[in-house]
Amino acid sequence: MCKSDEIFMQKTIALAKRAIGRTCPNPLVGAVIVKDGKIIGEGYHKKAGMPHAEVEAINSVKNKDDLKGATIYVNLEPCNHYGKTPPCSLAIERSGIKRVVIGMLDVNKEASGGAEYLKSKGIEVTTGILEEKAKRLNEVFIENKTNKKPFFVMKAAMLLNGAIAVKGGVSKWITSEKSLRLSHRLRGMYDAIGVGINTIIMDDPLLTCRVGRYKQPKRIVFDVNLRIPTSSTIFSKLSSNIYIVTSPYAENSKKRVLDAMGVNIIECDIKNGEFDPNVLSEKLLENDICSCVIEGGSRTHGYFLKHNLYNKAYLFYAPKICGSYGAFNVVGTDAPTSLNNVNMLKEMDCKKVGDDILIEGYF
Amino acid sequence: MCKSDEIFMQKTIALAKRAIGRTCPNPLVGAVIVKDGKIIGEGYHKKAGMPHAEVEAINSVKNKDDLKGATIYVNLEPCNHYGKTPPCSLAIERSGIKRVVIGMLDVNKEASGGAEYLKSKGIEVTTGILEEKAKRLNEVFIENKTNKKPFFVMKAAMLLNGAIAVKGGVSKWITSEKSLRLSHRLRGMYDAIGVGINTIIMDDPLLTCRVGRYKQPKRIVFDVNLRIPTSSTIFSKLSSNIYIVTSPYAENSKKRVLDAMGVNIIECDIKNGEFDPNVLSEKLLENDICSCVIEGGSRTHGYFLKHNLYNKAYLFYAPKICGSYGAFNVVGTDAPTSLNNVNMLKEMDCKKVGDDILIEGYF
Repeated sequence: MCKSDEIFMQKTIALAKRAIGRTCPNPLVGAVIVKDGKIIGEGYHKKAGMPHAEVEAINSVKNKDDLKGATIYVNLEPCNHYGKTPPCSLAIERSGIKRVVIGMLDVNKEASGGAEYLKSKGIEVTTGILEEKAKRLNEVFIENKTNKKPFFVMKAAMLLNGAIAVKGGVSKWITSEKSLRLSHRLRGMYDAIGVGINTIIMDDPLLTCRVGRYKQPKRIVFDVNLRIPTSSTIFSKLSSNIYIVTSPYAENSKKRVLDAMGVNIIECDIKNGEFDPNVLSEKLLENDICSCVIEGGSRTHGYFLKHNLYNKAYLFYAPKICGSYGAFNVVGTDAPTSLNNVNMLKEMDCKKVGDDILIEGYF
Repeated sequence: MCKSDEIFMQKTIALAKRAIGRTCPNPLVGAVIVKDGKIIGEGYHKKAGMPHAEVEAINSVKNKDDLKGATIYVNLEPCNHYGKTPPCSLAIERSGIKRVVIGMLDVNKEASGGAEYLKSKGIEVTTGILEEKAKRLNEVFIENKTNKKPFFVMKAAMLLNGAIAVKGGVSKWITSEKSLRLSHRLRGMYDAIGVGINTIIMDDPLLTCRVGRYKQPKRIVFDVNLRIPTSSTIFSKLSSNIYIVTSPYAENSKKRVLDAMGVNIIECDIKNGEFDPNVLSEKLLENDICSCVIEGGSRTHGYFLKHNLYNKAYLFYAPKICGSYGAFNVVGTDAPTSLNNVNMLKEMDCKKVGDDILIEGYF
């Protein structure tokens, strides 16, 4: 490992990030081809079904002779299986590339083994360059493959004492314009936004990403009894990216109405009066929802925290505080009786966002 | 005004800070005497009844002839009245000092007028040097004189959703060792610590400052019905600095018992079933409590917020979150029905303190 390995690996990560929020169920991957210390080719995986980063990079080199003896940098181990595209390990071997530098090994057993294959073909393989960064980049993919569930993000805007709405449910607007813009950016970075049915009824949100050049996220409503009014604002845009998670016992006539509107209905088993968290995760993954920002409300955050479903939190605090009696707290579920039974955050950090403070962390 | 004026003014502020938490009911004042660009004398006000900073600085100059034509820097306008000590304006005039540089004018009408007096005697007076810093330094004194109330500080250690205790009331320990040390340091920086009777009954705290070389703060318990058990841990140390605020209707026999223990009983009028906030402020000031850190619990923070008594907040957030149903929220009072009626913080900022995050701000 040398300094320049890290520099080129950093470049692969930057390339990979261009497709943030678009590659599900695939990982974010960038690749850079270097010869005599110079970048001669680069590419990244743009979308599932499109060529892998390694192939994009190889194709970007006009004179294929230049590939002889070159080094390829890639943040994730090249795949070794025939999926929607042929194995990248084979493409690399055939190109004449003599060294492969890898950020992290693949956690997806189906596709892994590329490093071993390449070594067996006499190609020099270096692994673990900027490994932590490579893993952070693909935290969604790792969660999907390791724990068979979407990467769930808790997002909330609240007062300093955890209130997301005052008495009567008023919650607009707690945080400042700058925080709202940032939370719209978050919507674009993940596959989906999810809210509980009470949020739909009380706030009637549109749930689109309204900043920048991000793609529109899928919109999920958790609605056990299918109470959603068909007049909800959410239906005013593109119903085909709306997913309503409901129980098998919800009214069939309502299901048919929503189905006719182009909405996707996901039926999820009920366990102890709530969605079975394992089935919920499975059904969302089946619908190519690899990551989801949960925006509340109170009961929905309570459900995800209670079942330890959250991976990450973005908590926006406005410079405000108020009485708690009758307010809606961000976590609407029973408190534990011991401080040992609370949900813990790791790597917690804070920064100012306009007038507000954003606290981030991992569960 | 020149750059060196600011440098010397900064020095007066640094000197003044040495007496933090000890000068009540007086302000924090430092003074520096400069001749030919060199500091020839300095001093600060150590405690009420002790000499003022200007006099300390003048006395520190051995050869009084050196004072002729010198400049004195002082963060607060020199006093112009006979209080416990003679006016500093007179001492300056008599010393032969030819220029006086002042941070902020005195807000205390009784003592102000020093600048005008000195000008009338032909001494050059410059005001407003580092005025904002000078005002920040004496925020307690300014609050006392301007609003006739102590400077009240809200201090709380909580979970990310505002819980200060889980179901059943357990609150030890929410935050980390490092935050605990910092909150002990806060105890030493203000005149007093205040808690509600429920905190005494549930947590049984000692309420002393257990770090550094700070003085011990006065300890206040807000206890309308005088429910405090005489076996409380708080009584295990120096009862003479304990102040129990109670109603005129509390049991006389209990008052006598506490009185015999050396505890100070402050009777405060009741209005709408609570302490009258104006009377409370007045009584505390009468007892030389110019600043007070309120450490809770829930109901006590609720009372101080409801009556807009708080000046500043130190809110410690542990990397933890839990259900709110049955937990104790930091603000135990009714929520408003409009976001326009919440308490607002200004100049809010955040930083990491060990594993926790500290959010500070002014009300």
